[in-house]
Amino acid sequence: MLDELKIKVLKANLALPQHQLVTFTWGNVSAVDRARGLMVIKPSGVEYDVMTVDDMVVVELESGKVVEGTKKPSSDTDTHRVLYLEFPNIGGIVHTHSRHATIWAQSGKDIPAWGTTHADYFYGAIPCTRLMTDEEINGRYEWETGKVIVETFHSRHLSPSDIPSVLVNSHGPFAWGKDADNAVHNAVVLEEIAYMGIFSRQITPELNAMQQTLLDKHYLRKHGKNAYYGQ
Amino acid sequence: MLDELKIKVLKANLALPQHQLVTFTWGNVSAVDRARGLMVIKPSGVEYDVMTVDDMVVVELESGKVVEGTKKPSSDTDTHRVLYLEFPNIGGIVHTHSRHATIWAQSGKDIPAWGTTHADYFYGAIPCTRLMTDEEINGRYEWETGKVIVETFHSRHLSPSDIPSVLVNSHGPFAWGKDADNAVHNAVVLEEIAYMGIFSRQITPELNAMQQTLLDKHYLRKHGKNAYYGQ
Amino acid sequence: MLDELKIKVLKANLALPQHQLVTFTWGNVSAVDRARGLMVIKPSGVEYDVMTVDDMVVVELESGKVVEGTKKPSSDTDTHRVLYLEFPNIGGIVHTHSRHATIWAQSGKDIPAWGTTHADYFYGAIPCTRLMTDEEINGRYEWETGKVIVETFHSRHLSPSDIPSVLVNSHGPFAWGKDADNAVHNAVVLEEIAYMGIFSRQITPELNAMQQTLLDKHYLRKHGKNAYYGQ
Amino acid sequence: MLDELKIKVLKANLALPQHQLVTFTWGNVSAVDRARGLMVIKPSGVEYDVMTVDDMVVVELESGKVVEGTKKPSSDTDTHRVLYLEFPNIGGIVHTHSRHATIWAQSGKDIPAWGTTHADYFYGAIPCTRLMTDEEINGRYEWETGKVIVETFHSRHLSPSDIPSVLVNSHGPFAWGKDADNAVHNAVVLEEIAYMGIFSRQITPELNAMQQTLLDKHYLRKHGKNAYYGQ
Repeated sequence: MLDELKIKVLKANLALPQHQLVTFTWGNVSAVDRARGLMVIKPSGVEYDVMTVDDMVVVELESGKVVEGTKKPSSDTDTHRVLYLEFPNIGGIVHTHSRHATIWAQSGKDIPAWGTTHADYFYGAIPCTRLMTDEEINGRYEWETGKVIVETFHSRHLSPSDIPSVLVNSHGPFAWGKDADNAVHNAVVLEEIAYMGIFSRQITPELNAMQQTLLDKHYLRKHGKNAYYGQ
Repeated sequence: MLDELKIKVLKANLALPQHQLVTFTWGNVSAVDRARGLMVIKPSGVEYDVMTVDDMVVVELESGKVVEGTKKPSSDTDTHRVLYLEFPNIGGIVHTHSRHATIWAQSGKDIPAWGTTHADYFYGAIPCTRLMTDEEINGRYEWETGKVIVETFHSRHLSPSDIPSVLVNSHGPFAWGKDADNAVHNAVVLEEIAYMGIFSRQITPELNAMQQTLLDKHYLRKHGKNAYYGQ
Repeated sequence: MLDELKIKVLKANLALPQHQLVTFTWGNVSAVDRARGLMVIKPSGVEYDVMTVDDMVVVELESGKVVEGTKKPSSDTDTHRVLYLEFPNIGGIVHTHSRHATIWAQSGKDIPAWGTTHADYFYGAIPCTRLMTDEEINGRYEWETGKVIVETFHSRHLSPSDIPSVLVNSHGPFAWGKDADNAVHNAVVLEEIAYMGIFSRQITPELNAMQQTLLDKHYLRKHGKNAYYGQ
Repeated sequence: MLDELKIKVLKANLALPQHQLVTFTWGNVSAVDRARGLMVIKPSGVEYDVMTVDDMVVVELESGKVVEGTKKPSSDTDTHRVLYLEFPNIGGIVHTHSRHATIWAQSGKDIPAWGTTHADYFYGAIPCTRLMTDEEINGRYEWETGKVIVETFHSRHLSPSDIPSVLVNSHGPFAWGKDADNAVHNAVVLEEIAYMGIFSRQITPELNAMQQTLLDKHYLRKHGKNAYYGQ
């Protein structure tokens, strides 16, 4: 069942340590099959170097039920579910504790758009969510984490297609994309701009966001119908 | 004698350079056999790439006497002994000069709990010990180092099971765990959160400790009888 | 056509990930054949690990026309063209988003000459360009990027031979040299001094530029007719 | 001639890139044969990956004359000569532009003794030299660089045996030791403490030097007749 998608999700998970985005088992990638309403996700707490395609867990998007797999799915499964249910255009999701994106998340601050590296992938600041309430934390925590991400995008009128990442306050980043591979790609970019942002701000503490015109230019050079980057 | 434990201690020592926690010979791992009152520890000043299982030294916990081994044990042996004698639930100890944990130790400051990466492993701030007195330094220095660690936990009502690391002021970190492997694991996590803490504080100098509710949630999601992380 | 130059350009492009100057496809190297008025450049958006010599694109310097190659040239081709047309002594150009040089570019600040590492290669501060106007960004953007680089050198009376790099404001670095290899070499040095500059300034915020005498000494020890470094 | 010493110097030079202390050819190691008044040093500007034992250059200490070797010696040869002539107990010297030691040198500041990692190898702050005068720079520059190092140790009553490194202002570090290997070892340690010092000071800007008692304890635990570290 979903054998091809499982292979893709496994490969995308294995790409996380290759890109030095994870320590131990601190990360997970999923992908969705929209037609069937199913997602494939990494099992909880399994080491990357022993993980096989059979460890991948198939979960029903609506109910959260495991429909295939012998292992428990990632503890963050419910966050992934909310994002797939609320962001209809995304196909894959990554969660990591990658160092520099996590630093911004812990600091509770958005990563402003400070250069074209950012603008090539993200059409504006990477938002950091509000703190969660005690009720949310003590309730369905992972589900509520997803809800607070969605709230952040809706309340700030952001498009998850144009800004395919978020920083969960006091926690770490989620990134997404059209599929699992693309989500990993965006997680790598996020880590790069998170690193560069820390020290750009150190050199120029009062640094303003980049010019809107330049942000438009770079984002639209790579995205949308007038894109002209690549083959 | 203790052949299995020696292999575990050797492997745990060799894991230190693999995790980039040590330069040259600056680190040591030990493990304890509680039933026999013995610990196995790395020899002093031996390079990791020539170290063999026969180099491991067996030391009597109570007396500090070497009961097996042709090499001198780590110069930090007495610190390990105190920790085993005073913290009855720990099975392995690691000492390193890993860069970022050592930075906090040199700075003389606790690492506050600033995010879920921290909360997943440490149930509160990583404490930094007080400065040692001249008498302690000029006396049984390594033994007194252990005593000042124990004092830090007792006087601040901290549980070594819930906070399996300490920063020795002006020196560097010790980490422990249920066995040697787990102690190394905690030393790696400590280094991660030490790194992230430096720059979280840079971005938000007035950064508060994370919400207690979130700290509880993440720590207890992975520890204790209601844990639900992993398989 | 230009087979030897294509091999050199390919090799120089592959040197970028080896020197950890690029993530994904974020970089490009070109070289020029002055006699024929042609340049060879990396194709747009092609992964380094599948790139072959046949992917290299030959572009006419004056017209910008692709005269050989089945792929689209780098989207930054027009910037390279301007630099070759305006800086007659350069033979190769590199563009990257290398982390620390990009940090300075995003910060909108020159990298002052703060030590002999800098002085060995760059005869003065690495300039950061002014912000581009909306007209420039919305017009022939990549061409205008080149023009603003040239303007920076002309208006500040800088020699592109003596300062073979620039920081494009809010964007990232360009480096050049007598050929593609030399341009990569300078891009590596730029990244080193960019890194060191961030933290030199952190330790001594009011840090002055190095002594002019020392700058002269080191630069001229390696460049010009009285150079005595090397074999 | 001096075949064994040449092999040692070659190996010590090759250890520099292995320890990530050098970029390109930015470093050199020498060793001395006191009985014959000769030193062996790396040639100038030769890449590490093609360097052979026959490239090593033998130089007469007193006169500076090349007495064997087909290549020009390192441009820093005269600095090495002064150090051997003035510091009679040292057997090997390393010069690098290693990132973090160079940052302190560029910043013009000593590295204070801030922890036991420092105290295990250096019996006090690593001194940074004064700025050189125009006469010194325009005169016998490399020789004067050595002289200013010696002046720093003499005027501050420092022992080159107890503090086997220096930061040359606006330039970078020199380290030395009983032989070439030991000098490289000290260069690695210097880089570690330079790194840690930058961020220790960031966390605690008013950080005092460590307690003298602790500095004594750690330095003397590893050095002198009462040392008890190692086998």
